[in-house]
Amino acid sequence: MSTEGNAAYGKSPFVRSKSHFADRITADGRDGWPVEAGRYRLVVSRACPWASRAVISRRLLGLENAVSLAVADPVQDDRSWRFTLDPGDRDPVLGIRFLSEAYDARATRYDGGVSVPAVVDVPSGELVTNDYQGITLDFATEWSALHRPGAPDLYPEPLRAEIDEVMDGVYRDVNNGVYRAGFATHQREYEDACQDVFRRLELVARRLAERRYLVGDTVTEADIRLFTTLVRFDAVYHGHFKCNRWKLSEHPVLWAYARDLYQTPGFGDTVDFDHIKRHYYRVHTGVNPTGIVPLGPDLSGWPAPHHREELGGRPFGDGTPPGPVPVAERVSAAGQP
Amino acid sequence: MSTEGNAAYGKSPFVRSKSHFADRITADGRDGWPVEAGRYRLVVSRACPWASRAVISRRLLGLENAVSLAVADPVQDDRSWRFTLDPGDRDPVLGIRFLSEAYDARATRYDGGVSVPAVVDVPSGELVTNDYQGITLDFATEWSALHRPGAPDLYPEPLRAEIDEVMDGVYRDVNNGVYRAGFATHQREYEDACQDVFRRLELVARRLAERRYLVGDTVTEADIRLFTTLVRFDAVYHGHFKCNRWKLSEHPVLWAYARDLYQTPGFGDTVDFDHIKRHYYRVHTGVNPTGIVPLGPDLSGWPAPHHREELGGRPFGDGTPPGPVPVAERVSAAGQP
Repeated sequence: MSTEGNAAYGKSPFVRSKSHFADRITADGRDGWPVEAGRYRLVVSRACPWASRAVISRRLLGLENAVSLAVADPVQDDRSWRFTLDPGDRDPVLGIRFLSEAYDARATRYDGGVSVPAVVDVPSGELVTNDYQGITLDFATEWSALHRPGAPDLYPEPLRAEIDEVMDGVYRDVNNGVYRAGFATHQREYEDACQDVFRRLELVARRLAERRYLVGDTVTEADIRLFTTLVRFDAVYHGHFKCNRWKLSEHPVLWAYARDLYQTPGFGDTVDFDHIKRHYYRVHTGVNPTGIVPLGPDLSGWPAPHHREELGGRPFGDGTPPGPVPVAERVSAAGQP
Repeated sequence: MSTEGNAAYGKSPFVRSKSHFADRITADGRDGWPVEAGRYRLVVSRACPWASRAVISRRLLGLENAVSLAVADPVQDDRSWRFTLDPGDRDPVLGIRFLSEAYDARATRYDGGVSVPAVVDVPSGELVTNDYQGITLDFATEWSALHRPGAPDLYPEPLRAEIDEVMDGVYRDVNNGVYRAGFATHQREYEDACQDVFRRLELVARRLAERRYLVGDTVTEADIRLFTTLVRFDAVYHGHFKCNRWKLSEHPVLWAYARDLYQTPGFGDTVDFDHIKRHYYRVHTGVNPTGIVPLGPDLSGWPAPHHREELGGRPFGDGTPPGPVPVAERVSAAGQP
């Protein structure tokens, strides 16, 4: 979840906050939030890797008509995520200017962080959940009645133990590891985190050298979670977070794997490199005081052939790829390679 | 010349100061400083690209016995360059703790920057020159009576106009361009500088695609000046100064050219990557407030085969390579790839 502004920076060592609102939206509605088409709005930033998981899952599963999407400005101000990309600086469905208003509607005098992804109950305007670890798993398992025909199984029952194990290491050392490196305020803390990042990436690369996907032979939640970090690697983590042993584009296996996913419908069509770069370089003034956003890296390699089909695997298993991105949700040209 | 601490940072746009002391040491002694073996001490930081020109020239020309070498700590404090690498934190020949003492000996109440390279007159302890543009040219032309047998001609008379022209563009857009990018405080200023860097590098690469050296078929001053920026490119300019369109190691021509020079006696044997990284990342707290020094990049490619011999050229012309580095001047293992 992205709450990291300058607030998060300066804590030492960097510790990611737990989500404060972890209600679940389920088929049986046991937390009071039943799965229901049109009732909920997913609020994200395309800059944020944690939120981007949900954007990808929603696309792959064909939940676009069931759960609407609000995209926040990639650059927070002191009131955090805001809808300054929308007409009148207001989310057209929720009618609010700041995501914090949905938090306030849920909990009066809430003074924790405001993070994306967030799912908001449209009728009441209340935040339901900002549980970045749970939202996508519920999309995959609880929302199945509303999946599109041909939606893949992103969290297949027989593989869950293996998926969980892979995701656990990837979370600690990679998804969150890059943040531990980037927000470190002591050399040793940074070095430990940076070493964890590259050690885990090498482990993962060994796994991916001869198999197309992390677990099983189809795209799963594990791939989504690794992808959202990899796609940001050269653009921000390499320089801004000093994870600079090598660029992703210098690693033959991981670079081909990441491009394969990028070119899979539902992945790359959600990625906005402009939002990604502006968010990190402009918001973390404790790391980058000038707020200058680098011109590089050259992103033109992302659409290049990856040859991973030769490893076999079927991205969607017995299912099919998602259709085109709804026009209103297309990433602008500025955000594309 | 390296004076850049935080003082230089924050000026907008970044303007490199002129050298304040531009006396020349010449064969005829017309400025009062005749060429003389053992009389002068060259003070450098191995971190600094401007000073490193002089370190390389001195090696190539075999002036080690004629001009002694003082290596400052790569991390300045608020009194600037200091001799904290030496026993008692004092330069053993000049007997001073800070380079500023030689500036003070020359000019009472001098309040300009203290920069390297600096040449100091040992008997009087006075600074003679900190003219980074002139020191190496005088080494090449005025000091010839003290050159080693087999020393190359680094500034050959018939090629001077071409060398000067190449160096002029390289200075503006590359040597100094990376600083303009890195010290920019406005987006536009940064973008202009970054574009200049890569535009000039592409121009230079076109020149180097089919010829081994920049001008003529031997190593000249032009190669030395380009090399001192290229060798720092991936280690510091790419991340710290945001010159991140691509890494040097991603550019086939320039990477091979830089490795060729690196592997030429007198170039790579003067390079201390530890000094380079610690200087930039720890001194410029306006760019890198935490002072954390990245673990990357992987430097192991520097000694790899470059195959540039196939282009012909003779690094030393009719001369010979310099002998081994004097033991006292060897770069520590920490500074090597």
